Amino acid sequence: MKLKFTTIPGSVVAPRGFLSAGVFCDIKRLGTGKGSSKGRKRDVALIVSEVPAAVAGLFTTNQICAAPVKLCIDRVKSGVAQAIVINSGNANACTGDQGIKDARAMALLAAQELRLPEEQVLVASTGRIGVELPMERVREGILAACAELGGSAEHAQHAAEAIMTSDTRLKTAAVELRVAGKPVCIGGMCKGAGMIQPGMSLSGRRPAATPSGLHATMLCFITTDAAIHPAALRLALQEAVTKSFNRITVDGDMSTNDTVLVLANGLAENPPITEKIARAVKAGKNPEGSAGFTEFSRALEHVCLDLAKKIVRDGEGVHRVVTVRVEGAKNNREADAAARAVANSALVKTSWHGGDPNWGRIIDALGYSPATVVEQKVDIGYSAPGGRRVVWSLRNGQPTKVSYPVLCEAAAPGEFDLHIRLNLGAGSALMYAADLTEAYVDFNKGDVSDPKNLGG
Amino acid sequence: MKLKFTTIPGSVVAPRGFLSAGVFCDIKRLGTGKGSSKGRKRDVALIVSEVPAAVAGLFTTNQICAAPVKLCIDRVKSGVAQAIVINSGNANACTGDQGIKDARAMALLAAQELRLPEEQVLVASTGRIGVELPMERVREGILAACAELGGSAEHAQHAAEAIMTSDTRLKTAAVELRVAGKPVCIGGMCKGAGMIQPGMSLSGRRPAATPSGLHATMLCFITTDAAIHPAALRLALQEAVTKSFNRITVDGDMSTNDTVLVLANGLAENPPITEKIARAVKAGKNPEGSAGFTEFSRALEHVCLDLAKKIVRDGEGVHRVVTVRVEGAKNNREADAAARAVANSALVKTSWHGGDPNWGRIIDALGYSPATVVEQKVDIGYSAPGGRRVVWSLRNGQPTKVSYPVLCEAAAPGEFDLHIRLNLGAGSALMYAADLTEAYVDFNKGDVSDPKNLGG
Repeated sequence: MKLKFTTIPGSVVAPRGFLSAGVFCDIKRLGTGKGSSKGRKRDVALIVSEVPAAVAGLFTTNQICAAPVKLCIDRVKSGVAQAIVINSGNANACTGDQGIKDARAMALLAAQELRLPEEQVLVASTGRIGVELPMERVREGILAACAELGGSAEHAQHAAEAIMTSDTRLKTAAVELRVAGKPVCIGGMCKGAGMIQPGMSLSGRRPAATPSGLHATMLCFITTDAAIHPAALRLALQEAVTKSFNRITVDGDMSTNDTVLVLANGLAENPPITEKIARAVKAGKNPEGSAGFTEFSRALEHVCLDLAKKIVRDGEGVHRVVTVRVEGAKNNREADAAARAVANSALVKTSWHGGDPNWGRIIDALGYSPATVVEQKVDIGYSAPGGRRVVWSLRNGQPTKVSYPVLCEAAAPGEFDLHIRLNLGAGSALMYAADLTEAYVDFNKGDVSDPKNLGG
Repeated sequence: MKLKFTTIPGSVVAPRGFLSAGVFCDIKRLGTGKGSSKGRKRDVALIVSEVPAAVAGLFTTNQICAAPVKLCIDRVKSGVAQAIVINSGNANACTGDQGIKDARAMALLAAQELRLPEEQVLVASTGRIGVELPMERVREGILAACAELGGSAEHAQHAAEAIMTSDTRLKTAAVELRVAGKPVCIGGMCKGAGMIQPGMSLSGRRPAATPSGLHATMLCFITTDAAIHPAALRLALQEAVTKSFNRITVDGDMSTNDTVLVLANGLAENPPITEKIARAVKAGKNPEGSAGFTEFSRALEHVCLDLAKKIVRDGEGVHRVVTVRVEGAKNNREADAAARAVANSALVKTSWHGGDPNWGRIIDALGYSPATVVEQKVDIGYSAPGGRRVVWSLRNGQPTKVSYPVLCEAAAPGEFDLHIRLNLGAGSALMYAADLTEAYVDFNKGDVSDPKNLGG
């Protein structure tokens, strides 16, 4: 299908009417030991729309969820927001009533400085769990961010820097499309490298169909100048996240803070995409204006998927990125369970690190997954990312005649696709997964010699 | 409760009437690259009872199960067996019809040499998945083992060596007890270091109540001279394995080959422990002879637990062993799910490796587990193994005033208990877990430069 959008350079300030900032306030020096020796890092970011925007958000389904997540779940219900204030270096999770007060105080301060209604300011945090925010520094940071707001590429870069924790690279994406002839832009930034296997829902509550294996802090902030009603934006975002962030895993751990927020300020002046249009499209109908929703949804999904893959590629210690494609499961739910079992198996992930096309470990993981698996029907193979030429190591549960060196070559690239066919039904699923390396272990074993290294 | 058994040195030949052997036949040189540079390793073991014995077994619930497991599941149904032949270096898993033929051929050869009925010989294998057994060498090994059978401590040591794969230490245990005044002995040996999170059942089928997280090759062979009927032996073994091997995890991966077998040859000449007695005890009754079943069961559980803990301590790259004790869950099933989520979290396991008492990662894992968790009710603390003095890091979801250095001290020993109280109900569970180290990753990333390193 022909893409009707164009990828462009840029981030959260690419769409009309958005400003951002990223500043230093030394939360990272306080919160963890890691940054202390490396000099200052930006740790408060701010994104502001010049006019009130439609908002939608998806949030971690972890039962232990951070104070800013609770605040956002409540505030996005209104469907309107105008600013997001974000800190890194401290998750404000497991911080009790003080945590809630601090999250509110962050929003209130930004609202006062920006002269916005308090409840139109959202908050997100990432970093160590269980440590109260150093609010003196956070306040200084928010004041500085409000003072520095701007719409340049540099402003956007500073914001993207300020949300990083163990990330080694900036993660941004932007696209341009047309909705009913009007140019529309979507821009985004995200962070995340460890504690990554998001399972997000609109309410933060687990949907009945959530796979039990679901388990990241990842934060993603998307802006657009599209005119779209909040309910339509929610439908588009839910689908986009289901196919992107909720399909990645670095280490199988779902965070207390996972958050995706989208602000849509309408300055593109396209004919508004209504809930009615969105629901009709979802129901397979084709009403007037449906092309706009369909194209906006695809473009949003593209931005989410681009950002989600950047998280896996920049995962802690990650050397190889593997797209696990399961087909032929009894149903999609079983396919998902099978893909997650393989994507999170310590033995499979270490074999990827070694470049070892070890199908025995893969079929072992399939066998203990909740999915139905019949040994004599399983096919396992390798291809280039998105490639159609599959090198099969196993067909019908039997090793093929492909030589070991050829299989090693297929599993050697930094990115490849792993094809698993269960040949039992029409269920399919995919996961964007990472290998498990010594570097991941070394990074996460922590530094107990650092007296600041307290809490989660 | 006063223990009515005594631990003694010894292994599978400690009980009367058992012989064993462990020999070299170079399967390991063929099967994997690991051993090739290190000289020869024993790789075929044999255990034989001088008289026909009652038998019970528990087997992996992995849907992909090895040929020897299929053979054993079928043969133990008769309740009678007299010999077990075991090879290491090759799992004979995912080897199709040839695998089944080879497993049968192994049993048949031993039966012919030992002049036993073929169906009274059991088979177990461990090693790489997906490679056909080098049957020429296996046959040589079985012939040599039959020729070398003996009842000395050295014979038992050779057998325990011959079942090792990535194990670095022999794992044996034995106890003495009295059943109705008669001295009875139970001895055992096991192997296992990676692909360890057994979930075994009598039939190899998943019980309805199997936690979805269940996921080792571990092999365990137990001998006893007790007189006990097969059905009673099955009941005792099932309970013992549920509380020992099915409660350990090294890496969360459940193997295709997990097997526990017990032979009870009756040479102690105690009044036989019948199925009727066993069922009455299970129903809470106290019939004549019940003390015998109760004490035998406890002693068997002790042997299983001793061997299970040895597997975790000798797990691949393991530096620290942590007993995760969950109490106060809504029910035992939720407690089990919570304990497994914590025990298998990459972030929790790496923090154990670092000696970091990181409760934030623990509560995060609890929050994404299928168990119900309420942040404000969670307690997390540390004690010495089996200790009653708990150092609490979290009470009611709030960090305690215990200083970070004191918490580090509690999480520093090579073995400690992690206490988690959910304070929601009466459910409890425990898991014997291991840390995740660079050494585990290094060992399991494999050596693709070795041309013999083919298959699973």
